[in-house]
Order: sequence, then C-alpha cells, then structure tokens
Amino acid sequence: MAKQQIPDIVIGRLPIYLRALNYLIAEGRRITSSQELGDRLGISSAQIRKDLSHFGEFGKQGTGYDIVFLRDQLQQILKVDRVWDVALVGAGNLGKAIADYPGFVGRGFMITAIFDVDPAKIGRPMGIHNVIVQHVDELAATIQARGIKIGIIATPAEHAQGVARTMAEAGIRAILNYAPITIAVPAGVYIQHIDPVVGLQRMTYYL
Amino acid sequence: MAKQQIPDIVIGRLPIYLRALNYLIAEGRRITSSQELGDRLGISSAQIRKDLSHFGEFGKQGTGYDIVFLRDQLQQILKVDRVWDVALVGAGNLGKAIADYPGFVGRGFMITAIFDVDPAKIGRPMGIHNVIVQHVDELAATIQARGIKIGIIATPAEHAQGVARTMAEAGIRAILNYAPITIAVPAGVYIQHIDPVVGLQRMTYYL
Repeated sequence: MAKQQIPDIVIGRLPIYLRALNYLIAEGRRITSSQELGDRLGISSAQIRKDLSHFGEFGKQGTGYDIVFLRDQLQQILKVDRVWDVALVGAGNLGKAIADYPGFVGRGFMITAIFDVDPAKIGRPMGIHNVIVQHVDELAATIQARGIKIGIIATPAEHAQGVARTMAEAGIRAILNYAPITIAVPAGVYIQHIDPVVGLQRMTYYL
Repeated sequence: MAKQQIPDIVIGRLPIYLRALNYLIAEGRRITSSQELGDRLGISSAQIRKDLSHFGEFGKQGTGYDIVFLRDQLQQILKVDRVWDVALVGAGNLGKAIADYPGFVGRGFMITAIFDVDPAKIGRPMGIHNVIVQHVDELAATIQARGIKIGIIATPAEHAQGVARTMAEAGIRAILNYAPITIAVPAGVYIQHIDPVVGLQRMTYYL
C-alpha cells in the first residue's frame, strides 16, 4: 500500500499507540484490545481498528492484539526499530532539559551531538550521554560527517530559522523545533513545532 | 455564533496566527494580508481567511488586516487578554526549564505556584519569577485558595495521573502535560500533551 494513501493524522496517532503498548508491556501484560487501548487513550476503539487496518491485520476478532507483536510492528512502521542520532542546537536551560531527558532512549532516539555559541558551555559534557558541546560553526560538518538525519532546535526564536536552514542544507530530514516561532523548511524536510503557549492558548479559549 | 460550531482544529490554529502577528508587530509592521501570513506559516491564505471568518470580519478585500487590531481580537477570543496564574508540578530539570522559560510572559500566562516532593527543592525560589517551591501536599489547597485554573505537569510518568486528578478536583480546568503518558481527565477539564518523542516518531515514518 502506497504511503501517500495513509492520512498524516493517522500517522500522528501511531506514536500514541506505541507509547501505550510499551506501558502495557511494562505492566506485564500480553494481550490487549482496541477497546482497552481506546479507554486508556480517549480514542474510540473503532478509530484504533481503522487506523491499524491501514497497515495490515494485527488482531483477530475476539482474541485481541498480541501486545509485543503489535509494538514491534508499530516500531517498524515508524522506523524506530533502530536508534537515530539526533543533533541538538541550543544548550541553555531548555537544551539542558532536553539533553537530560531520559525518555528518548528506548524510543528510537539518542542525542549524540550538541551545539551552542556560549564559550562557557563549549567543550563541556552535557546530558545523560555526556556529549561534549561543540560550537555551532561545526554544525554542518558534523551532520554531514556522521550522516545525522534528525535535529532539535532549542535556540532563541531569532536564531531558529538560520539553524534550520543550516540543518537542512547539511542533510537533516526531520526537525523538532522548540523555538517559539514558525520555521519554514525546504520540501522533503519535515518539521514539528513544540510551543507550550500554543497548547495553553488552545485550551483557554474554552474556559 | 455558538462556540461549539467552530471546529477545534480552527481553534488550534488561532495561537499560531497570534504568534505570527506578534512577530510582525515586533518587526514594526502595521498591515498584513492572509497571503503574507500564509506564506510565513505554510498555511493557505484561503484557510486563514476561512478560519478568521468564524469570528467576524477582520480585514477588507484589498486593504489587508490591521495587525494590532487583529492581534487584540485574537487575544480576546483566546482569552489571553489577561494573565492566567499557572500551577507547575515537578521541579526537576524539565520543570526548571519550564519555570525559566521567558515565553509565557506577555502571552497570557505566569507560573505563580511550583510543587515538588524533593526536600532539597522545597522552600527555595525557582524560575524567572522566583516562586518558592512548595510540597505537593499543598497543591490542592493552593489551587483552591488562589482560584488557579491552569496546571502544568512535569513529573515522572508514574505520578502524572495522580497529579492530574488532584488538580482537577481542586478546580484546575486546563492541563498541559509533559509527562510521557496519556492522562485521563474528567469532563469539563481540557488537556494537551507535549511529548517530544511523539513528534519525532511522527516524522521518522516518512524518512
């Protein structure tokens, strides 16, 4: 089945399913159902069955899903059955929190390169993998030399677009942007924005 | 016009428009167009005009939008023409980065209460407003006493659901959850999840 036939909104739910399956595994569970997954996630069981049906037949009516099998399948579909090197730009408070975050490991990602412009940070280890912070001037060469495909931007807003351009030109294909500004990327480069205020403002409307 | 007639996906784009308008104001601009906004945001101008038309007539064909006026209108619609107190639970690396984040101020939010269970953190000031960290046992009473309506969860995953329950019972109406787990909230309480790995996995599918 051609990938372009699957709506992006379906792809966006797969990581949520994968996360829930990993929690079930941690709880020692072996079999689940679309009903149970749906109850945990606030998504209808019909939606879950429909989403998964895009990729094949993962469960049988009445017997449910084998959790480990479904987890492995989703990891393959999302291409996180491997570990992706990630380049992080910005080693301030936010960058430090990202580098210290233990949740990447085991979910397909490892921050293996960190960049900043602050002489006080460059040359020092940062994060749970003790990555030595490099000057941002070395960003493009490092991405190219190591074939890094994924970048995280945690710079002030005014530097984010420039960093994204450098990343894309050096071969980065997917960018997670924490800077509070919308960034343009060339065709073939994917970007996701994380801005807590956007999340909050989306809710205050309803209060 | 009744609020329930406006799709949530439209509401979700309004904070993006608001953010772009604030950047235009910072650049000294006075008038913009749906075309310019769309080019900046990677959204079609027709979509922007349609989204805004839900709320009234903000611009005239050929003359564009008065940026300050549209900004003020969007702030009113999103109810961020005021400052909301926010209670943050979790004062680890992530919580510290959130408390230090300068991007809340001026966009409708101020973290005015911070909670943790670590005796080394309780009683000490944290973040750009030097909020004294309290024990999480004081969470419910503080929310009630101050009428706080918005909470941010930055705890380990295993504590997030319990914190959300306490928040909701004490009167919190909107929760921004950074813990990497899907949390259930009662009807009438809104929740948005921020999980960087979900954002990354959504992109690796396409690589």
